[in-house]
Amino acid sequence: MSAQHPQHPLPVVSLGLGPIGLRLASRIAAQSGVDLVAGVDVDTERTGPDLGLLIDRPELSIPIYATLDQVAQTGGVVIQATVSDSVIAAEQMLQAIALGWNVVSTSEQLMFPAPHDAELIARVDAAARAAGVSVIASGINPGFLMDSLPLMLTAACVSVDHVHVKRVVDTDQRRVQLQEKAGVGLSRSEFEARRTAGRLGHVGLRQSAGLLAAGLGWTIDEYVETLEPVIADRPTDTGLGKVPEGGVLGQHQTFEAHADGRVVITYDLEMSAGAASVDHIHIDGDPTISQSITNGVNGDIGTIAVISNLVPVVAAAPPGFLTMADISPLHSRR
Amino acid sequence: MSAQHPQHPLPVVSLGLGPIGLRLASRIAAQSGVDLVAGVDVDTERTGPDLGLLIDRPELSIPIYATLDQVAQTGGVVIQATVSDSVIAAEQMLQAIALGWNVVSTSEQLMFPAPHDAELIARVDAAARAAGVSVIASGINPGFLMDSLPLMLTAACVSVDHVHVKRVVDTDQRRVQLQEKAGVGLSRSEFEARRTAGRLGHVGLRQSAGLLAAGLGWTIDEYVETLEPVIADRPTDTGLGKVPEGGVLGQHQTFEAHADGRVVITYDLEMSAGAASVDHIHIDGDPTISQSITNGVNGDIGTIAVISNLVPVVAAAPPGFLTMADISPLHSRR
Repeated sequence: MSAQHPQHPLPVVSLGLGPIGLRLASRIAAQSGVDLVAGVDVDTERTGPDLGLLIDRPELSIPIYATLDQVAQTGGVVIQATVSDSVIAAEQMLQAIALGWNVVSTSEQLMFPAPHDAELIARVDAAARAAGVSVIASGINPGFLMDSLPLMLTAACVSVDHVHVKRVVDTDQRRVQLQEKAGVGLSRSEFEARRTAGRLGHVGLRQSAGLLAAGLGWTIDEYVETLEPVIADRPTDTGLGKVPEGGVLGQHQTFEAHADGRVVITYDLEMSAGAASVDHIHIDGDPTISQSITNGVNGDIGTIAVISNLVPVVAAAPPGFLTMADISPLHSRR
Repeated sequence: MSAQHPQHPLPVVSLGLGPIGLRLASRIAAQSGVDLVAGVDVDTERTGPDLGLLIDRPELSIPIYATLDQVAQTGGVVIQATVSDSVIAAEQMLQAIALGWNVVSTSEQLMFPAPHDAELIARVDAAARAAGVSVIASGINPGFLMDSLPLMLTAACVSVDHVHVKRVVDTDQRRVQLQEKAGVGLSRSEFEARRTAGRLGHVGLRQSAGLLAAGLGWTIDEYVETLEPVIADRPTDTGLGKVPEGGVLGQHQTFEAHADGRVVITYDLEMSAGAASVDHIHIDGDPTISQSITNGVNGDIGTIAVISNLVPVVAAAPPGFLTMADISPLHSRR
């Protein structure tokens, strides 16, 4: 069965049953045209015929296996919600491809792979083409709000000089893991220590910029990143308890990409407790387009949506390792 | 040469050299990766080696022919900016297809063909597949702002209940033909007479709703349209001169599509002199997304952009009659 003529309903396997993996499984179990056939998780305490119980659908008898090769069916889509790391995620993709599965992944690093992963991705691409399946990594961010969506908006432009995307996320509206990742409740010195250890900061701005630049024909020759704490100017109640004055409410990241000797992409990402959520895209060009999404898009439900909505698209896409620009190729051309 | 492996640079012919056709030709002449090889227009007063002169590029020697079969080259993309009418536009497409050309058309009626054109479109589709070329109709509206863009935005939703798109266009910012089409400067009775004769109103709301509904899995069983004049409450200067109090500044169109016994799509389109331009998309769903484009997108430059940006996409697309949902298939799935 070729990737262009997917089965109906389309078999789907949930690989990785953490918080996002379980929410994805729950969504897939409710989605039409797809059939959640199994869960796979390395945590062997989870294996058994009980994925239905974990997603409040006890009437469904869906087995959980420790490895993908135990799944009886094949030829559909594996949803991979395991790791951000490109090398580990790509190795898992290769296993899925070898078993005849398409893959939709949440791996931030694979949304638009870094140059040093080129060889790895060439291997995944070749394997996918040989198997007649397609693989892609995406999510709400990276994958949509700061890259595919502004890229598609440029379709209304005959020229683009600069793209500025600003995303502000009120962490109180997000899952606890994300609040912790943003540094909510840390002291300034704890924030500094974690930042130095590389344990803070959203992963994906570089990937988003890579996708946007490739689509718009820019070769990035330099980028500048900053990561600063957002400091409470009074005692503040947050989803992780009260933060004292001078404590950390979250983080503010900026990213500038340079091409042809000028700044072509600017990202501004604030994730902090009590912030006024918004998504804003400003395209300087002909014409200039300035777009805002009031209250922003919730990142948890948004990621579930983008990944699950990609499932039928990827099953029908041409084989190979794809990026979001392959799925949605309309954008400004020089 | 198959449609999937387009020539580089891609030969492009401008079919129809009215105001939009000439602006398209001008853009194509400046675009990289494409080569404007000829113009074609039924107006034989225009034929001759002078398209370069008409687009202020006298250094380019680009012939204008009366018919497409006179163009020496083949295998690229014909930009069709001739008529809205589906039957005439489809017949022109069939000629282009027979000569081995892909087509990007501005025909509003073909952006998403009406059911009564199904047989005609099946013929175009079969011919395009046989010739290994692809054809599509698009533009800023219909084609982008009120259909493809909201459809792509729904990719961030796991469910969609209702889509409301509001577009307000200040006709003073648009070409004279559009100001006249919107009824600027008419008396109320002239507006009534033209409306009765079906000579007013933007063509495309039904097509936009068709694309959106098909993407979101809704079968429209009823639609309700209104078309009213926007009346000057004081003497008002417009791009077509002063309009007296009680005169017509433009038009306001609404459109409601019903499916499953409820309203699923609402369009609101005002085109009038001095109106505050804006593009607004509100998606009721999980999550609800409310997006605004400040000052809106200028429709003339926007159409030039969407059509010209589609040229390389269509040349690389799978053969057949395509819609914007084929070009950009990511959206919410039930």
